[in-house]
Amino acid sequence: MTMPPPTCSHRLLSIFLGLFQGALLLFFSLFVTYDKSSVQAEDDSLVATQLYGIFPLFQDIQVMLVVGLGLLLTFLPHYGLSALTHNFLLLSFSTQWALVLQGLLHHFHHGQVLLDLHNLLTAEFAAVTVVISVGAILGRTSPCQLLVVATCEVPIYLASEWIIVTCLGVQDVGGTITIHVFSCYFGLGVSKALFGAAELPVHPKETPTHRSDLMSLVGTLILWVFWPSFVAVLCQPGDAQHRAILNTFLAMSASAVTTVVVSSLLRSDSKLSPGHLQNGSLAGGVAIGIVADMAMPPVGALTLGSLSAVMCVLGFKFLTPLLVRKLALQDQCGIHNLHGLPGILGAVASAVVVLVAPEDISGSHFSQVSSTEGNAREEAWGQWGYHGAGRQAVCQVVGLVVAIGGSLLAGLLTGAILRLPCLARPPERLCFDDTTHFKIQDQAKSLGLGDTAEEGALALKERV
Amino acid sequence: MTMPPPTCSHRLLSIFLGLFQGALLLFFSLFVTYDKSSVQAEDDSLVATQLYGIFPLFQDIQVMLVVGLGLLLTFLPHYGLSALTHNFLLLSFSTQWALVLQGLLHHFHHGQVLLDLHNLLTAEFAAVTVVISVGAILGRTSPCQLLVVATCEVPIYLASEWIIVTCLGVQDVGGTITIHVFSCYFGLGVSKALFGAAELPVHPKETPTHRSDLMSLVGTLILWVFWPSFVAVLCQPGDAQHRAILNTFLAMSASAVTTVVVSSLLRSDSKLSPGHLQNGSLAGGVAIGIVADMAMPPVGALTLGSLSAVMCVLGFKFLTPLLVRKLALQDQCGIHNLHGLPGILGAVASAVVVLVAPEDISGSHFSQVSSTEGNAREEAWGQWGYHGAGRQAVCQVVGLVVAIGGSLLAGLLTGAILRLPCLARPPERLCFDDTTHFKIQDQAKSLGLGDTAEEGALALKERV
Amino acid sequence: MTMPPPTCSHRLLSIFLGLFQGALLLFFSLFVTYDKSSVQAEDDSLVATQLYGIFPLFQDIQVMLVVGLGLLLTFLPHYGLSALTHNFLLLSFSTQWALVLQGLLHHFHHGQVLLDLHNLLTAEFAAVTVVISVGAILGRTSPCQLLVVATCEVPIYLASEWIIVTCLGVQDVGGTITIHVFSCYFGLGVSKALFGAAELPVHPKETPTHRSDLMSLVGTLILWVFWPSFVAVLCQPGDAQHRAILNTFLAMSASAVTTVVVSSLLRSDSKLSPGHLQNGSLAGGVAIGIVADMAMPPVGALTLGSLSAVMCVLGFKFLTPLLVRKLALQDQCGIHNLHGLPGILGAVASAVVVLVAPEDISGSHFSQVSSTEGNAREEAWGQWGYHGAGRQAVCQVVGLVVAIGGSLLAGLLTGAILRLPCLARPPERLCFDDTTHFKIQDQAKSLGLGDTAEEGALALKERV
Repeated sequence: MTMPPPTCSHRLLSIFLGLFQGALLLFFSLFVTYDKSSVQAEDDSLVATQLYGIFPLFQDIQVMLVVGLGLLLTFLPHYGLSALTHNFLLLSFSTQWALVLQGLLHHFHHGQVLLDLHNLLTAEFAAVTVVISVGAILGRTSPCQLLVVATCEVPIYLASEWIIVTCLGVQDVGGTITIHVFSCYFGLGVSKALFGAAELPVHPKETPTHRSDLMSLVGTLILWVFWPSFVAVLCQPGDAQHRAILNTFLAMSASAVTTVVVSSLLRSDSKLSPGHLQNGSLAGGVAIGIVADMAMPPVGALTLGSLSAVMCVLGFKFLTPLLVRKLALQDQCGIHNLHGLPGILGAVASAVVVLVAPEDISGSHFSQVSSTEGNAREEAWGQWGYHGAGRQAVCQVVGLVVAIGGSLLAGLLTGAILRLPCLARPPERLCFDDTTHFKIQDQAKSLGLGDTAEEGALALKERV
Repeated sequence: MTMPPPTCSHRLLSIFLGLFQGALLLFFSLFVTYDKSSVQAEDDSLVATQLYGIFPLFQDIQVMLVVGLGLLLTFLPHYGLSALTHNFLLLSFSTQWALVLQGLLHHFHHGQVLLDLHNLLTAEFAAVTVVISVGAILGRTSPCQLLVVATCEVPIYLASEWIIVTCLGVQDVGGTITIHVFSCYFGLGVSKALFGAAELPVHPKETPTHRSDLMSLVGTLILWVFWPSFVAVLCQPGDAQHRAILNTFLAMSASAVTTVVVSSLLRSDSKLSPGHLQNGSLAGGVAIGIVADMAMPPVGALTLGSLSAVMCVLGFKFLTPLLVRKLALQDQCGIHNLHGLPGILGAVASAVVVLVAPEDISGSHFSQVSSTEGNAREEAWGQWGYHGAGRQAVCQVVGLVVAIGGSLLAGLLTGAILRLPCLARPPERLCFDDTTHFKIQDQAKSLGLGDTAEEGALALKERV
Repeated sequence: MTMPPPTCSHRLLSIFLGLFQGALLLFFSLFVTYDKSSVQAEDDSLVATQLYGIFPLFQDIQVMLVVGLGLLLTFLPHYGLSALTHNFLLLSFSTQWALVLQGLLHHFHHGQVLLDLHNLLTAEFAAVTVVISVGAILGRTSPCQLLVVATCEVPIYLASEWIIVTCLGVQDVGGTITIHVFSCYFGLGVSKALFGAAELPVHPKETPTHRSDLMSLVGTLILWVFWPSFVAVLCQPGDAQHRAILNTFLAMSASAVTTVVVSSLLRSDSKLSPGHLQNGSLAGGVAIGIVADMAMPPVGALTLGSLSAVMCVLGFKFLTPLLVRKLALQDQCGIHNLHGLPGILGAVASAVVVLVAPEDISGSHFSQVSSTEGNAREEAWGQWGYHGAGRQAVCQVVGLVVAIGGSLLAGLLTGAILRLPCLARPPERLCFDDTTHFKIQDQAKSLGLGDTAEEGALALKERV
């Protein structure tokens, strides 16, 4: 059972990563410094207060991405180590890469790039798009290919976010359009271009087991708990942030309950599907992001949470098989159901909210954008003029269309790059298998006894 | 091995939940709005500061309940998905239900229900009572039955809390009486009425395995770490909150060490029982809640933590088997040992603390109640008059007795409802089994290889 | 397969722990009281603000130590319950023990020991050294022996920290020298003295499995996420703390990426080793601690993170086998690679930073020490005089040498105590096995079916 390891790809990976880390050091040594306030005591106290406001939320988001999302991806029973590690590596790499690009693009003042916790946070958001997108191609790709995705997606995200938020003036505090919709269609584009026109066979190792479903559900719960921090972290402190937290909580609660209802109704024996639960419970968080800080009554959050859970579960049941049959579209983690459909729903809902609550939009709401981007957005608004709610509603929809179109196109191009032979897509029999990427210790294998009942029993059978 | 699925119950569940979610939407659309402060900048800063004080603790509590408690319940090796999911569903449902009831009862001003993070927190506390209570009947009940428990218990909890805290003036900042003792005896009442007079046989799937014990212990550790947030979140900010955090930490530390001592001394080979550890380590947190912010010296917290761990472990060793033999009382998770006994200990200790530290009680301590209930309690105290410590000590004991009596009675009635045939209690052979509630993927089963060594080996044996 | 349990040791453990808990109660009842500020409202608000600043970080650190470190140690597949429990017990015991000793040493004013969250935190840091040190001897020791290590190490740590920080004036806000280097060489000393001159054979149960590697990696990720809180919690609020968080984040990111590069380059088939990932990703956090709040450009943090990951992985690959061969030095968890090498690197780096950024050292940087130890350090500095950077750089190196030498010596002595027969080191066949310390339920065993595929299959084989 010794398999020829895809050495070439891993070697390439190491060299690529090593060069990147070196270039990063060079860039940082030349340009980056800390955003130091002056040394007066009052400022220290102010810095401390701001830090206490943002740091716990930053840590919550870190837990979500590194632990929660990592565990969610361990639903592939033989691919848990790889899923956790690739998620972790992509987050670290993409955050660093986004820091460099952000530094080049936005923060170049006086020959220096200033670094603070807010920068880290926006860089982390760029990294989120990468880990969402690769969900579409999880398990059938080499680490090299994943890094190429990250390398391409981060600059495209930054450009897309600049167009959507700064140029078009779209209101999207929780990243529903800029992060979720964008990364979903980017990932689907990559998947389509990479895997081509033929439908992929079902791999024997891609079926979750009881244990891997349990680990994955724990990941879902961690994401579910900390989602309000993710949505609210960039809101203006005070009422807007408070409202964003409450809205997100309500939407997530409604999603959880609705997912159980819909998943159960869909089967004749009324049993729940673990996959529905792992994803549907989070759909409300995706949809609510764009309207979380708007002047929307609480019932809106509940409605949005319920509807997005319905769409997510129906998507898993009907749309994903349809896309496989009609378009041969591979979507391993179902990112279209969790990020695409609820994201579109949220974007449309935001246009409605803008229309039916116009006095808030043209009034106090304008001040409720993240403070650091306030200037850019205010300029954008000056450009558009205060033509009221209709204009803004159109903006939200245009932003959605731009995000979908742009990300699909960019994803297809990126996917074409991934077909380069040197990136070493693993052959089918090495997919979904940790031993392709990890040195699992010899002893257990030499006993012929793997880590699961199945392997153990099979190994035993051969010897019996 | 195909088993007729309890379709009827699941269908009923979906319909019930769907109707509830619809009614919730209606209620929210008619009555609920956000508690908006005015839009002045100073207020925004004040709101932000209050938010930064309470939000991290709120998130801690969410992690405890959704992740920590969920994992603690996965000690049943074949029931992990169900335990996690039911815990999650009950929390979401009960919190929403409590929000509605609280809105109707307390917050109906000017035709609107105001919603803020503090309301969510108290609603969450109501939900805690439900997930504690169902611990007594875990594994042998249908999801429908669990929802009926939630539907009944939340209003009864709110009434009980109103009687104990507002009418009787009991001091109980950490919910020792109002949450732990109440939910324990409610759950035991439900169990008694549901399972009747006959002793239940030991089910082959209710024995924990090494792996399920490990997962459960991780849940215990998460609960252990965040318990200070749970106790301190509603304390008055400042010294009282600081003291509550320290007291809870000391009590939990003492519990952890004492549990190891007692569990080890109880066996002739001195080995530890995982179940003792999973529960005993947390006993101190239950007991300390009621006295955490009182003017008690630190030694009190340590003593209480040690004593409650002793009682919890002895309860598992001697009392639970006795209750099974004498009363045929089924207590699956041992909630009487973790919540009942330490809760009673804490309540008695609070009476003692009130007696021996009276100057604090009649003095500055009165201001150390949660700010939102300050008025109600002050009125209660006005009603009682400042008759000193003796009166308050009696109050604490009367509160305990009311909580036990009321919850037992209400639990028995609720348990009688659960016997309705339409609620479809699963037959014994379908108990403690995730496949009763979940669609575990076909493939693994079709291979005849389950997710555990035992199943895999048995399946193999049949074929060998 | 019934094995004579090491009853004597467990009994001794219980008695020892019971006596300790009793003595603790006595000590607390006589001397310890809460650090109460006066009851005026302004003070309450001040206490609240300070609490909101420190409490979330305190909770982060608790999660790291109790959950993250515990899970990291579960890489031994049959020893997970013991690893989690011993880690938990040692943390609780050592924190209490450190509180007593700290009270005796530092806080004895007016016949009382004052207790606040800051004291708890420094006591927790003392406990950290214990759980790091026992990593060297994990799996081959009885709980009794571990408690003896804790009993000896805590006072030695406090003395060492006093010499290094207060007397020598070493700057070490994140505990690189005082915690990591100290505990590493202490642990190695214990291991050497305990296991003697003969090389230990490889135990069949010490090889990680796929599943145990996954759990351990989750522990690593939890530690990785919260490490900035650990480093920054004692920094002066404001710029210094902000910088410490950013520096730690950058160092950890660089470590994560570099670990993948180096681990992959080291093998001809370029596969990753889970052990490298579990440890190397954290190496940057160890090294950065000592310089995190210094006026170092961000590139320094990245460089330090990368270098420490390189050293850690190379240590696992080359140094550990060398130490086993040449010195018969047993280091079960590889603490020398995670805490020793990166710690030395960090200490040397701190001397360099002090030299190349001297204006900060002699200027504003002096105020950036933890506020409670400010006086002591200022006195120390008064003693040394402001002789500039060179002096301080020498101090850093002298501190490192003192930490290594002192801890090695103390560790050897402690290890000699562990050889006492009454402490009952388990025989080799009972090592790395949870059933030595835990009562795993009878049923699973009576079926002859263990908790792993291997055991299940073997048991089945015997019967087939």
